[in-house]
Amino acid sequence: MELIYGKDVADILTKEIVYKVSALARENKRLPKLAIVRVGEKPGDISYEKSAIKCMEKCGIEHVECTFSEDVDKGVFLSGFKKINVDKNIDGILVLRPLPKDMDEAVAGKIAPDKDVDCISHYNMGKLLAGEKDCFAPCTALAVEKTLKYILDKKGESLRGKKVTIVGRSTVVGKPLSLLLTGDDATVTLCHTKTVNLARECAAADILVAAAGSAKLIKEEHVKEGAILTDVGVNMDENGKLVGDIDLFDVGDKALFATPVPKGIGAVTTTILAMQVLKARMMHE
Amino acid sequence: MELIYGKDVADILTKEIVYKVSALARENKRLPKLAIVRVGEKPGDISYEKSAIKCMEKCGIEHVECTFSEDVDKGVFLSGFKKINVDKNIDGILVLRPLPKDMDEAVAGKIAPDKDVDCISHYNMGKLLAGEKDCFAPCTALAVEKTLKYILDKKGESLRGKKVTIVGRSTVVGKPLSLLLTGDDATVTLCHTKTVNLARECAAADILVAAAGSAKLIKEEHVKEGAILTDVGVNMDENGKLVGDIDLFDVGDKALFATPVPKGIGAVTTTILAMQVLKARMMHE
Repeated sequence: MELIYGKDVADILTKEIVYKVSALARENKRLPKLAIVRVGEKPGDISYEKSAIKCMEKCGIEHVECTFSEDVDKGVFLSGFKKINVDKNIDGILVLRPLPKDMDEAVAGKIAPDKDVDCISHYNMGKLLAGEKDCFAPCTALAVEKTLKYILDKKGESLRGKKVTIVGRSTVVGKPLSLLLTGDDATVTLCHTKTVNLARECAAADILVAAAGSAKLIKEEHVKEGAILTDVGVNMDENGKLVGDIDLFDVGDKALFATPVPKGIGAVTTTILAMQVLKARMMHE
Repeated sequence: MELIYGKDVADILTKEIVYKVSALARENKRLPKLAIVRVGEKPGDISYEKSAIKCMEKCGIEHVECTFSEDVDKGVFLSGFKKINVDKNIDGILVLRPLPKDMDEAVAGKIAPDKDVDCISHYNMGKLLAGEKDCFAPCTALAVEKTLKYILDKKGESLRGKKVTIVGRSTVVGKPLSLLLTGDDATVTLCHTKTVNLARECAAADILVAAAGSAKLIKEEHVKEGAILTDVGVNMDENGKLVGDIDLFDVGDKALFATPVPKGIGAVTTTILAMQVLKARMMHE
């Protein structure tokens, strides 16, 4: 089994982004800019914000941090949000969610669709469902799609006709990813906690995407000989160690390729965010 | 094999609708009202309009026909559309699509989400993707869901854990239906023209939904013993006769239940439309 590190996928995408951003700079055009909205000091939010900023800097994309205190008044927060939402110098907005109280829904309802680079608005989700090419999909779902294309490219293959099983039906990964891969001509089965024979559904797939949020759920019996495995899981095991949804030790050499956790899909996600900010910038020409 | 006629499903739903509309009438409240928007004189549009009107009348729902000539100016059409879009006495709008020229996209972008009873706006499609209960799904997709629940109810079963294969990935049936049934705890596989082994995918399913738009595509080899078949296909055969996507003659007694074409799902769709107009009316309380 060959491990596929997210960094290798991200590096290729970063090169493309840097090339296009440099072209904007050479032509003295405005550089892409991301606003990062955070409320409070949750360690997970701060850690994701740090890696997003590092990635934007690597890509030559500008950013601004819009941080509000945990107990910010809803009105104050929304008026602050409105400012960046209408600011013509900001191309994309990343909201570190979930936000406290009812701000989450308000922001998803108010975010400008052309700045909604992580697809939190119903409008962008609908465009994704309709299969429109100018939509923004959720970054993690796109990261899986790009990683799969990278792996298949090594084999000289594409997603067309591939049998894919996705485990997990969340609105940020499972459901949007099923639509993206269906659009790529794969045949997708979407599994979840109520699926009757999960091992059978998984073991029938050429490509298995684990996005269930359940530590080491996927074992050897879930894997088809020669399959490609991608792991979106982010779980803590009994020793406080970060582990994915796939038990790669148990799977052994049955799979051909697999993304590890950590250093797998997570390492692609911020680069996808940069890609979407650049896409938004091009729409703001 | 037992044939399931759409009328039987529609009759049950109609009773519920009539009961609720009568309650509004008894309380001297405003009755639900549907606006039907048609451009030109396409026979298919006129025929659907007629059955929609007949169904609304049966349910006690009011309606208004907004008909424009084939060569209507876009500006004139859009200002006419705006009137019904803001009219507080109109609860739902049915647009007979596709409209000519670029009006189609304009209408889908402008329709008030709370009147979008056939789910043509990106906003409502996004709500469907997010799994929100107060959304409007496309009527045909909902008609299939209701028919499946009616059939399973006969067996004392539910969709939970059922293995469903849908053939056809359209934005009006296949994709939204896959989301609806996933929300009902079924495990859904979405097939299409690029699916490598269609017969195998279909023959593995407890429930098969044919929505491919390909006459008599589904044969005996596509059907699991004891399966439930629903047919959304509307095709003309070589003799100009209306036929579905399923060749019921070839399937024979292998399936347990099947909806025929004509007199199947199509007969449920307008009743679902009435149901959604009533739902919109309740939101306009």
